[in-house]
Amino acid sequence: MSFLERLHHCTISDLTGFRPWSIGKAQIGWLRDDVADTLRRYPSVFAVGDDAVVLQSHLADFDHRTAAVGEVVRALAELGIVQGWRNESFAVVADYGQPPLLRLERAAVPVFGVRAYGVHMNGYVRDGERIKLWVGQRAPDRQIEPGKLDNLVAGGVPFGLDPMTNLVKECAEEAGIEEAMARRAIPVGAMSYRMLHQGFLRQDTLFLYDLELPADFLPTNIDGEIASFRLMELEEVAAILSDSEAFKFNVAPVVIDFLVRHGYFKPDQPGYADLAIGLSAFQTPR
Amino acid sequence: MSFLERLHHCTISDLTGFRPWSIGKAQIGWLRDDVADTLRRYPSVFAVGDDAVVLQSHLADFDHRTAAVGEVVRALAELGIVQGWRNESFAVVADYGQPPLLRLERAAVPVFGVRAYGVHMNGYVRDGERIKLWVGQRAPDRQIEPGKLDNLVAGGVPFGLDPMTNLVKECAEEAGIEEAMARRAIPVGAMSYRMLHQGFLRQDTLFLYDLELPADFLPTNIDGEIASFRLMELEEVAAILSDSEAFKFNVAPVVIDFLVRHGYFKPDQPGYADLAIGLSAFQTPR
Repeated sequence: MSFLERLHHCTISDLTGFRPWSIGKAQIGWLRDDVADTLRRYPSVFAVGDDAVVLQSHLADFDHRTAAVGEVVRALAELGIVQGWRNESFAVVADYGQPPLLRLERAAVPVFGVRAYGVHMNGYVRDGERIKLWVGQRAPDRQIEPGKLDNLVAGGVPFGLDPMTNLVKECAEEAGIEEAMARRAIPVGAMSYRMLHQGFLRQDTLFLYDLELPADFLPTNIDGEIASFRLMELEEVAAILSDSEAFKFNVAPVVIDFLVRHGYFKPDQPGYADLAIGLSAFQTPR
Repeated sequence: MSFLERLHHCTISDLTGFRPWSIGKAQIGWLRDDVADTLRRYPSVFAVGDDAVVLQSHLADFDHRTAAVGEVVRALAELGIVQGWRNESFAVVADYGQPPLLRLERAAVPVFGVRAYGVHMNGYVRDGERIKLWVGQRAPDRQIEPGKLDNLVAGGVPFGLDPMTNLVKECAEEAGIEEAMARRAIPVGAMSYRMLHQGFLRQDTLFLYDLELPADFLPTNIDGEIASFRLMELEEVAAILSDSEAFKFNVAPVVIDFLVRHGYFKPDQPGYADLAIGLSAFQTPR
């Protein structure tokens, strides 16, 4: 798979089989048709039409919405539709930075096709003019993409945390990076995609960070999510990206973006602009 | 104008009034209808249809295409359609990195709506954790956007030069940067846009570079294209971008991209992801 194909791998354009669902005028997510039809069982919470689903308007504030949708989510878990309960909740927002409309169990986020937010941090070391990238390997017991290669630090932004506070927390848990160092991470952009994942429509926005680490830094995983770390030459990173699917599906574009921003690719290489711009083209409207 | 509007300012989506033109199967550019109709006068060179224009297929190699189109361009200059002869030529390619199909006088590039390639370099200085950006002001006699603010170094890629060789040349001419320093510039991405400019369809791909300069570096313009330079705090750069149209139309997105990549904007600022992704969304397919 070429670098460009690797990017387009994260994109879905045909939404046949999914129905949008809204809270008031704000479109919040996408429901697979069979899930939408299951929601007909909860008419006091959802008004289910053949083309669209709307949250009942009497659920007019955060607490009522959270309670009512929460009951439906627990019922969907008993039906086996919501799987892998995380006991962790995400904020559902019309747009990032807007007040949350409700709080949703993380395991239900893909089922409701709700946009989730994450932080991904490239940890790197300079060696003269050269750069090396810290790459983690996900633990074999991870629910999503076990054993795949990952950024040094990454995680979903849970309810109530801003991206930098979440990054500081994940830096400590995933790589043993102390707060003072974590706060030196530089926000370098964002990435947004919409894709099919395990049969549901997954919509994510990732906030991207770079952190330059001292040459003698050694990451230590605390939370058991990463099995091992390795400091890789960019040539090795690029070879793995182009020859295998070893990187987690959404980490591949984050790392390609890192390679582009740090000059690993050169403009006179065929396809350079397509790749640098492809990073964009693969992104979906939010 | 918001940062996001500044980006979309560089985009055209409605191509009514323009006709595509091709060489063989490769679509090369867009001709305004009146220009296309004028080309009916040169039936040995162009086959002009109501919806599309094709270069006559007997013009089967680089030399013949360059000579025949060159004659038409000179005739269009006499008609006043091609203005501001530059005596500098650009390569016309189906795709960057492909062998050139012909060589075209630079002044004719917008008239034929042909994709042009440029290099833009952000020259910056670190002051502890802070970054300052060198900004040039274009000379008052420039044909395009006189007096506007510009990158430290920028220029079109002329026929026969690769982007880095052209950057080294422009670094010397526009800012007095010596070759050894210029070659330390890091390619950080590309930008592509299609817009109306002076009545024609302008399609550009810019190769973007960052160069970190020593604190005591002072740029010196040699070629008269830049009237003055100033080292600006990023806060001042951002204020100018959001409050005025002082930056050249295509430099504004290059500088916004610089601000995003270097962490000037923070993910918890409202609209962060829209801006970082908007940089992409404003880009057009090549």
